Amino acid sequence: MPPRARAQDTAETLADKQREISISEFFTKNRHLLGFDSPAKALLTTIKEAVDNSLDACEEAGLAPQLLVEIRPEADTFKGLNLASLQDDGAEDGEDGAAKANGKTGGKSNGRNNGKNISRLAPAREERFRVIVEDNGPGIVAAQVPRIFGKLLYGSKFHSLRQSRGQQGIGISAAGMYGQLTTGKPVMVYTRTGPTKPARRVQLVLDLKKNEPVVISDDETVWEKDRGTRVEITLTGSYKRGQHSVDTYLEQTAIANPHLHLTYINPKGERRVYPNTTEELPVLAAEIKPHPYGVELGLLSRMLKDTECRTLNSFLKDEFCRVGPKTAEQILTTADLPERRNPKRLAQDDARRLLDAIALTRIPAPPTDCLSPIGDSLVMAGLRSGVAADFYTSVTRPAAVYRGNPFQVEVGLAYGGGQPADELARVMRFANRVPLLYQNSACAITKAVLTSNWRSYGLQQSKGALPSGPLVILVHIASVWVPFTSESKEAVAHYPEIIREFKLALQEVGRQLQRYLRRRQREKEANQKQNYIQKYIPHIGDALQEILSLDSPARENVITTLTDTLERSRKF
Amino acid sequence: MPPRARAQDTAETLADKQREISISEFFTKNRHLLGFDSPAKALLTTIKEAVDNSLDACEEAGLAPQLLVEIRPEADTFKGLNLASLQDDGAEDGEDGAAKANGKTGGKSNGRNNGKNISRLAPAREERFRVIVEDNGPGIVAAQVPRIFGKLLYGSKFHSLRQSRGQQGIGISAAGMYGQLTTGKPVMVYTRTGPTKPARRVQLVLDLKKNEPVVISDDETVWEKDRGTRVEITLTGSYKRGQHSVDTYLEQTAIANPHLHLTYINPKGERRVYPNTTEELPVLAAEIKPHPYGVELGLLSRMLKDTECRTLNSFLKDEFCRVGPKTAEQILTTADLPERRNPKRLAQDDARRLLDAIALTRIPAPPTDCLSPIGDSLVMAGLRSGVAADFYTSVTRPAAVYRGNPFQVEVGLAYGGGQPADELARVMRFANRVPLLYQNSACAITKAVLTSNWRSYGLQQSKGALPSGPLVILVHIASVWVPFTSESKEAVAHYPEIIREFKLALQEVGRQLQRYLRRRQREKEANQKQNYIQKYIPHIGDALQEILSLDSPARENVITTLTDTLERSRKF
Repeated sequence: MPPRARAQDTAETLADKQREISISEFFTKNRHLLGFDSPAKALLTTIKEAVDNSLDACEEAGLAPQLLVEIRPEADTFKGLNLASLQDDGAEDGEDGAAKANGKTGGKSNGRNNGKNISRLAPAREERFRVIVEDNGPGIVAAQVPRIFGKLLYGSKFHSLRQSRGQQGIGISAAGMYGQLTTGKPVMVYTRTGPTKPARRVQLVLDLKKNEPVVISDDETVWEKDRGTRVEITLTGSYKRGQHSVDTYLEQTAIANPHLHLTYINPKGERRVYPNTTEELPVLAAEIKPHPYGVELGLLSRMLKDTECRTLNSFLKDEFCRVGPKTAEQILTTADLPERRNPKRLAQDDARRLLDAIALTRIPAPPTDCLSPIGDSLVMAGLRSGVAADFYTSVTRPAAVYRGNPFQVEVGLAYGGGQPADELARVMRFANRVPLLYQNSACAITKAVLTSNWRSYGLQQSKGALPSGPLVILVHIASVWVPFTSESKEAVAHYPEIIREFKLALQEVGRQLQRYLRRRQREKEANQKQNYIQKYIPHIGDALQEILSLDSPARENVITTLTDTLERSRKF
Repeated sequence: MPPRARAQDTAETLADKQREISISEFFTKNRHLLGFDSPAKALLTTIKEAVDNSLDACEEAGLAPQLLVEIRPEADTFKGLNLASLQDDGAEDGEDGAAKANGKTGGKSNGRNNGKNISRLAPAREERFRVIVEDNGPGIVAAQVPRIFGKLLYGSKFHSLRQSRGQQGIGISAAGMYGQLTTGKPVMVYTRTGPTKPARRVQLVLDLKKNEPVVISDDETVWEKDRGTRVEITLTGSYKRGQHSVDTYLEQTAIANPHLHLTYINPKGERRVYPNTTEELPVLAAEIKPHPYGVELGLLSRMLKDTECRTLNSFLKDEFCRVGPKTAEQILTTADLPERRNPKRLAQDDARRLLDAIALTRIPAPPTDCLSPIGDSLVMAGLRSGVAADFYTSVTRPAAVYRGNPFQVEVGLAYGGGQPADELARVMRFANRVPLLYQNSACAITKAVLTSNWRSYGLQQSKGALPSGPLVILVHIASVWVPFTSESKEAVAHYPEIIREFKLALQEVGRQLQRYLRRRQREKEANQKQNYIQKYIPHIGDALQEILSLDSPARENVITTLTDTLERSRKF
């Protein structure tokens, strides 16, 4: 069948259409991949990215973070429009050409129509907000401001193996890009790197075609802060309460970051302060080299090419963790490669032999000082500050490894108190101290909770469902590289090693809950018995007095003896 | 608390660490985003991307596609290794330094360990395959080969609004990159653009740091084909049967592409041919301009800047679909902007006024000749060729629109036959004729099937579950831009407009199924009655003969009359 509306392509006409796509064009069209798929989610994602960056920066500089998060409603649109001219005269004059083209399809256009019965979909009016996030961090060197806020895939964390909230160098510039796309407003940044330095005020946009920042203004300014960064992004969004809201996100951020002092002003102007519950900053996580077991051929080849080491021996020892002289020697002997060979001159086949030899060599697991878990006592403190319950417990697992990356799992649990008894348990998910609110069902954490057997710990649970009861379960994974299921970092990918650790930790808190529930049950039964004793013994005394014609002291004696005996029996 | 292992960062030290991240580095580290998260999925994704490209190219050139897909096992690794040197002497000499650093954390290292009890995780041995996909398409111009196969985000489809399988210019180069990362082997491409042109054979790899192709060899060669492209990628993978397998993917591809002639050779050397069930090529979908309602401020600003039109009036008419002279005039009057203003000189505020005016103007829905559904009869033919059933039906909905993008939904249903009666229905999901195999629960198609009420059509269905019965449901969405939930294009995003269309189509086939089931039920009952008549009437005749002492002809007469009467009553 001949084509309809246009000429057939050849290799040559197809070649003319080939074009490079910039990463900013790609994410503009696919912005749901970054967490900007709905106005409500866009507002949350913007705040989340800015808060992540502020917390990372404060901790890296050893400063106790004090953050301000503010959402200000902005003036509405439709200003200056000539509304008088509007007349719904039903003119659909643009349709002619297209309708004709469409008509040509004739009998083959099964199921098509000419567009007339398609429901009309004018863009919905959305609210505008200015999001402000301000920290007391180290500030940003002036030359870096444009690229940090105005270029996708630019950052300090991607190339290092260290636990941090940010990973990819996309988040905050994507938020700025979304604001720019929806409101046309530039990103505004205030930053100051110390009391002796001037503060700077930078306005910038992102060139969507080139993925490069365009600075609109850059001035010295007066700022009351000695040090810190303030970012303002204007965007269309939607402010809602509930499970997926900014409010919930900030609440959970305070729980997982007990060292954070947070002030939050919502669009209604209501101010809420979450004071820090500890003075102690988290242990600063160390950066590590890659572990040999986590490296693939492609990466190994590149490392061989990029290294400054002159010999294979030093390459193995310097570029990887856990490789000492003996391990290096063993790898090279197995691969049958000379120790002094220049790594840059290694042929592809030799690189493969090297990789195979690594797989055949026993190498210790990576070090774990690159991880900074919240810690048992602070998980409990966080839960206590956020959830009113009768029983709290927590577990920090030893570190484990997936694909060469160390990670560590913590679980906290709060039971009873004012929590609803007949609803499903609430699961709070965290990755490197960041709350995960969306894509709950795609997350390995949810899977681990669902597939744990909570009935054996004394809770109710339907098949394939969360346990039910007055219960909050907090799960945290800390890793040098958390594997997320998408760039928007909303769910942890299903690596078996990771799910196994989640389940082991859940089992531990489950057993502790079970002990608590049993103890409570025993106490309840004991109390009941005690009540029986106090209630019935006097009557038995009276009855015996009557039957045996005892005098009052004898009756009292009987009562005391009986009570003693029963109390003693109750204890066993 | 002072940091442990390294100096605190300042704005200056942080600035030193900032770096640009190339898109290839990004996707190397995040390759699960592209569908390369497991060896089995990597094999499927590679074939899928190559087949998508071949089908798109053949159709665009008006050629009936004849494809060959072959998976060849490759020789194993561990060649040339000095295995004699291997001795598990338990030397963990590399651990010293790290263990010391770890020891320093002292009491604060709650839950940490020194790595000794971490379970060892050497990389698992994976199988290697060479994937070969060959087509009879238009071929690729020599100059384009390197970038098409060796550069991420390069392609012909991203910038056009037209229904095609490929969208983003990532897929095939990502597959080559994965092969290179896991086996070090370059991508091999054979291509020829016509019988008078020489065939070329190109070997290339991707520079992971720069996201640029590196050509290893490029020669003229002899090829028996007049025209076409053959790509060979060597990768580690895993070949499995079942729901998520290459076999299933190719089977469903044949169903949704009845014009495709496909030969498939699996790793065991078994050859299977799926002949085309129609000679007719799909209607070639037209490319459209963006619809004004689908454009946001950021995109509008860029269009204003990039346009070659000299006046706002011509800008509106030329750069958008469905805007004729009258609509353009109305928009500009509402925005209070002069028709002859140069679009390139429009200030930001004016652009916003323009956008607001668009929202206030009635504009017809986009044309739908940009869509190429499979069509009722071919959906049925496809189902017939792939599924043995008693009843087939299908529905093609009229086109609809989400965010300014036209789309169209088709649903097919096959019931009965050899299909298992007590299992859940099988749902086949397709987007632009490509089968979607993974992330079933994240997909809007699944959601629409789950939330439809199948009990009202005579099927069994538990709450929140798929209907059960001997049933296959095929759902296809065709669109100029299918919104997927991730780059790996495995699930359709939950736009309410799209889910609504899915549900309407499902209801239609549901009602047709209901009619069939009722008819079958009536026929069954009628047959039963018929059986009763044939079974019992002769006995009644015998009984009457005895009671009334009838002769044989009278008995026959009674039997005939009774049968007639009952037959007639049965029909009402």
